[in-house]
Amino acid sequence: MRIGVCLKPEQPDAKEVVGRLIGWAQQHDVEVVVDAETAADVEAPSAEREDLCAGADLVVAIGGDGTLLSVARSCGTRSVPILGVNLGTLGFLTEIKRDEMESALDRFREGTIEIESRMRLDIEVHREEETVGRYLALNDVVITRTALSRMVDLQTFADGLEVTTYHGDGLIISTPTGSTAYSLSAAGPIVLPLLEAFLLTPICPHALNQRPIVLPHQTEVEVRVSLMPGAEAATLTVDGQEGLELGARDRVVVRRSPHDAQIVTSPFRNRFEILHTKLNWGER
Amino acid sequence: MRIGVCLKPEQPDAKEVVGRLIGWAQQHDVEVVVDAETAADVEAPSAEREDLCAGADLVVAIGGDGTLLSVARSCGTRSVPILGVNLGTLGFLTEIKRDEMESALDRFREGTIEIESRMRLDIEVHREEETVGRYLALNDVVITRTALSRMVDLQTFADGLEVTTYHGDGLIISTPTGSTAYSLSAAGPIVLPLLEAFLLTPICPHALNQRPIVLPHQTEVEVRVSLMPGAEAATLTVDGQEGLELGARDRVVVRRSPHDAQIVTSPFRNRFEILHTKLNWGER
Amino acid sequence: MRIGVCLKPEQPDAKEVVGRLIGWAQQHDVEVVVDAETAADVEAPSAEREDLCAGADLVVAIGGDGTLLSVARSCGTRSVPILGVNLGTLGFLTEIKRDEMESALDRFREGTIEIESRMRLDIEVHREEETVGRYLALNDVVITRTALSRMVDLQTFADGLEVTTYHGDGLIISTPTGSTAYSLSAAGPIVLPLLEAFLLTPICPHALNQRPIVLPHQTEVEVRVSLMPGAEAATLTVDGQEGLELGARDRVVVRRSPHDAQIVTSPFRNRFEILHTKLNWGER
Amino acid sequence: MRIGVCLKPEQPDAKEVVGRLIGWAQQHDVEVVVDAETAADVEAPSAEREDLCAGADLVVAIGGDGTLLSVARSCGTRSVPILGVNLGTLGFLTEIKRDEMESALDRFREGTIEIESRMRLDIEVHREEETVGRYLALNDVVITRTALSRMVDLQTFADGLEVTTYHGDGLIISTPTGSTAYSLSAAGPIVLPLLEAFLLTPICPHALNQRPIVLPHQTEVEVRVSLMPGAEAATLTVDGQEGLELGARDRVVVRRSPHDAQIVTSPFRNRFEILHTKLNWGER
Repeated sequence: MRIGVCLKPEQPDAKEVVGRLIGWAQQHDVEVVVDAETAADVEAPSAEREDLCAGADLVVAIGGDGTLLSVARSCGTRSVPILGVNLGTLGFLTEIKRDEMESALDRFREGTIEIESRMRLDIEVHREEETVGRYLALNDVVITRTALSRMVDLQTFADGLEVTTYHGDGLIISTPTGSTAYSLSAAGPIVLPLLEAFLLTPICPHALNQRPIVLPHQTEVEVRVSLMPGAEAATLTVDGQEGLELGARDRVVVRRSPHDAQIVTSPFRNRFEILHTKLNWGER
Repeated sequence: MRIGVCLKPEQPDAKEVVGRLIGWAQQHDVEVVVDAETAADVEAPSAEREDLCAGADLVVAIGGDGTLLSVARSCGTRSVPILGVNLGTLGFLTEIKRDEMESALDRFREGTIEIESRMRLDIEVHREEETVGRYLALNDVVITRTALSRMVDLQTFADGLEVTTYHGDGLIISTPTGSTAYSLSAAGPIVLPLLEAFLLTPICPHALNQRPIVLPHQTEVEVRVSLMPGAEAATLTVDGQEGLELGARDRVVVRRSPHDAQIVTSPFRNRFEILHTKLNWGER
Repeated sequence: MRIGVCLKPEQPDAKEVVGRLIGWAQQHDVEVVVDAETAADVEAPSAEREDLCAGADLVVAIGGDGTLLSVARSCGTRSVPILGVNLGTLGFLTEIKRDEMESALDRFREGTIEIESRMRLDIEVHREEETVGRYLALNDVVITRTALSRMVDLQTFADGLEVTTYHGDGLIISTPTGSTAYSLSAAGPIVLPLLEAFLLTPICPHALNQRPIVLPHQTEVEVRVSLMPGAEAATLTVDGQEGLELGARDRVVVRRSPHDAQIVTSPFRNRFEILHTKLNWGER
Repeated sequence: MRIGVCLKPEQPDAKEVVGRLIGWAQQHDVEVVVDAETAADVEAPSAEREDLCAGADLVVAIGGDGTLLSVARSCGTRSVPILGVNLGTLGFLTEIKRDEMESALDRFREGTIEIESRMRLDIEVHREEETVGRYLALNDVVITRTALSRMVDLQTFADGLEVTTYHGDGLIISTPTGSTAYSLSAAGPIVLPLLEAFLLTPICPHALNQRPIVLPHQTEVEVRVSLMPGAEAATLTVDGQEGLELGARDRVVVRRSPHDAQIVTSPFRNRFEILHTKLNWGER
C-alpha cells in the first residue's frame, strides 16, 4: 500500500502531522510519498503532484478544503480515494480532525471506512471555433464580472433550452459538494452530496425575481457570455482556485464529469453534524 | 376512451370550456363523465370524484393549480393521467391554455403528448401509539405555528439522523413540483420536476443561518413537534388544502409515495418558458 | 425614589433576583413595589401593574424581552424609564445581566446611566365607521393570514399614497427596536434604534420582487385587509403578545406614537456588542 | 435663466431630445449650454462639464441613471438642481420621460415643480498617513474583492465602535437614493429617499447570519481593508463609475456630505409609482 501526501503550503503545523503520518506508515509497512512542492524538509520520498496521485492507493490532503480541492484537481480523472485532514477548523471536505488521523487510516487499511463518490463538473470554454479551456471542478465554476466592469449578461441554456439570462454580478454552477461553498453565501440552498444534481445560483442578480435552480445531473448547461458596453471581460473561476479571462461571446459548457471524486468520509460525525458545526446551527 | 372532468367550483367560464370538451368528445367518440359536485347544469353524465378517477383514461382538471392538486389527491394512488386546463393565467401545473385544449386532447388521443411522472409525498401523523392522519401530497406538507401562538420547534430527522431543530414559523417539506409553490415565497430554490428530491424550507426561521436543504428522494423525513410554553397547537397543511391540528409531541413522517402523479405536459411551451411567464423573468 | 418591579411569571430564578433588588433598595433607602400578579411570596408591597407604572421613578423588568415588552405596554403613555434584567441569555431589550443589576441601579441612582428614547407605534383598527381596537407597540404590529386560510391581500398606503398590495402570509410593521425581532426572521434589515423610521417587512410574499421598505417616522401607514375567497379572517398581533381577529375590509392605521418608551441602556456593552452576541456574529 | 445640458454619449436619440430642449429654450428666452464632450453637432454653445454646472440654474441630464449620477459628481458641491430625462425606460433618478420634458421645464420655470434634497456620501481613502482618494457619491461606495482574489475582510466601525468584520465579496455603503441600485440586488431593503440614513449591505457574506444594517445619517463609517493571504487587492467603486484599487490596511472613511444633491422630482408619478414600474410590482 502506498499513500501520497499533499500539504497546505507554509503551514507550520503540517510538518508535525506528516511526521505522525510517516510514523503510522512505518508501523504498518505502508509506503509514503510526499508532494514535491511542499515536501521541503520532510524526510520522505517525494514526487510531483500528478505522479503522486497516479501511483497511490490513497491521497491524504493535509490543510483545509482548499488543499483538498486542489488535490482533487491534480488527481484528475483517476479515482484514487482522498482523505482530508484539517489543520485548523473542521472543513466540509476535510472532515477528519488531526487527532483522528491514525484512527481513520487504520479503518481505511481495514476497509471499514466509507468512501463517498462525489460528482464533478467537466467545463469547456469555447471561443469561436476553438476550445480555449478545459477544467474539472469538485465544487463549482463561477462566471463573474470583473471588479470594475459593469454587470454581465449570462444567457443560460439547459440541454439547449433557454433557462434565462442572468444579468448581474455573475453565476455559480455548483455540484452538491459545492452547495456549501460560495453558492451558500449567494443564497443558494444546501444540496446533500448524495443527491446527483447541478445548482445554478445567480450572484446579486439585477432581477429580484431570480432564484437558485436545481437541475438533474444529466443536464448539459451552456452559458453564453455577453458583456455590457464598456465592460472588457468577465472571469471564470474553477473551485475558487484556477481562473480564465472570458471575452464577449465566449461559451462555457458544463457537464457532469464521468469521473467522480472519491472522498473518504468521517466515521466520527455524520453529514448533519458537519453542517451543524460549520454553519453554527443551534445558535441564532 | 373515457375522460373524467373536474371543474373549479363557481367559475362561470368553466361551463363554456366543458361544453367545448363535450363537443370534442362527441366528434371523437369519447365518453365524458363530469365530477358530480360541480356538474350542475352541464349536460353530461356525472360521477363522484373518486369513481370518476377510477374509471377514466384521462382526467381533465379545469381551473387553476388548486383544482389540479385537489384532483390529484382524489385520484389517490391510481395512475390516471391528469391534464390541467387553466381558466385564468397559466399555472405551474395547469399548463394548457383553454384555446389549446382541443389540440392537447388530439395529441393525447394520438399518444403524441408527453406525460410526466411527478413524485408525491406520503405523510403520516403519529400521536403517541396511534396514526391520526395519512395524506398524499403533490406539492407540499407544511407545519406552522397557529397565528396567535408563539414559535414552534420542529426537531427534524433524515433517515434517523438529526438534521436540525427549526425554531420559527414552521417548515415546508416539498416535492420538486411544490418548489415553485409556497416554498418559493419562503426563499426556497426552484427544483426541476425531473429531479427526484425532497426540499426542506424553513419559514421565517429564528436562526439566521438556516437555509433550505435538498435531500435525496429516498430519505425518510421525520418532524417532531414541540410547542413553546403558551402555544397550544401547530397546524399541518397538505397542498394548501387539507389540514390537521397538531399537538405537542406529534410526529410527522414523510416518505416518497410509491405512486407518482401522471401530469400531461404542455406541448406548447417548455419548463423554462413556464417559469419565465409565471415568475415574470425578463422583467426586473 | 420608588422602583416598580415586574417579573416573568413562573420563573424560579426571578425570586432570587428580586430578593437582591430588595436588598439593594433597603441599603439605599429606595422603596420597592412588586407587580401584584407575580408578587407571590416576595416580601414587598405589591400593586396592580398599571398603578405600579404610574407611581414609579424606574420600572425594573426581570425576565426576557417579552417581559419588558409587556411592561412597556402596561406603562402606556407614561414616560417612566424601564430597566430590563435578563434571567437567561442577553436580550435585545433586557440588556443587563443579572450580575450587573446592582451596578446598573447604582448608576441609575447617580444619573450616570444612559436612557434611550425608543419610538413606538400607535395602532388603530377601523371596521366600517367604528374603531374596534387601539394598541401601543414597542416592537411591531403584524398582520397575518390564519394558519389554515389562504393568502391575505394587504393593500398598503403611506400618507395616502398606495405603496403596494402585499399578497402572501402577511406584513410586519416594525419600529427600529422591532427590527431585530420577528422582522429579522422575515429577511428585514437591522435598523439602529437611534434612527427614527418605520420598517415594512412582507412575510413570505408571493411576489418574488417584494423587498422590505424603510419609511420616515412621520409617515402614516394604512393597511386595508382583503381576504381571498374562502379565507375567513386575518390576525393582528401586537409585540407578539396581544391579538385581534381581523375581517375583510378592516383597516389598520399605524402612526408614530407621541410617547416614546424610555429604555435604560447597558453601560457594559454597546449596541453592536449586543448584536454580536445575539446574532452570533464572528461565527459563520 | 441658463440651462446646462449633459447627454449620455453615443445615444442617437439624445440629439433629437436636445433639439426639442433648445426649441423650448428659444421660446422662453432661456440660454442653453451643452456639455462639450457630447455637444458634437448640436447647434448650441458648449462648455466643459464643470463650468457648465457652475454657471447653470438647472442642469438637464439626458440618458439614464448613470448619466445623472455622473452629472451629480461633476456638479460636486454646487447645489444646482438636476433634472433627469430618460431616453429609454424610466429610471429611479431620471424620472421624467422624454415626452414630459417640456411640461417639466415649464413647471421648473414657474417654480411649481418639487426639488428633493438627496443626501450624498463624502468618501476618503487613507493609506498610512496619506489621503489617497476623495470622492462624492449620490448612490453608493462599494468595496469588493477583485474577481480572481479570495474573500476580503472588511473590519467596519460606526463612530469608532466596531460593527463587525464582513468576510466575503465585499460591502456596499449606500444612501437611501442608492438603496434601489446595487444594494437591492445584494438583498438590501428599499430606503425612501426622504429618510436620512446610511445603509450597509454585505455582498455574499460568508457568515450566513449577516444582514443589512440601516444607520443614522450622522454616523461616521470606517472600513479597514484586510486581505486574505494571496489576495493582492480590493477595489473601491463610487456610484458604479469611478474606481480605485485598495491595498491591505487601507482605510475608507464615509460621512454624510454637507452638500446634498438637488434632484427635480417628477410631477407625473409619485415615489411608489416609480418603484412599481421599476421593480415590476403587481407582477409576481
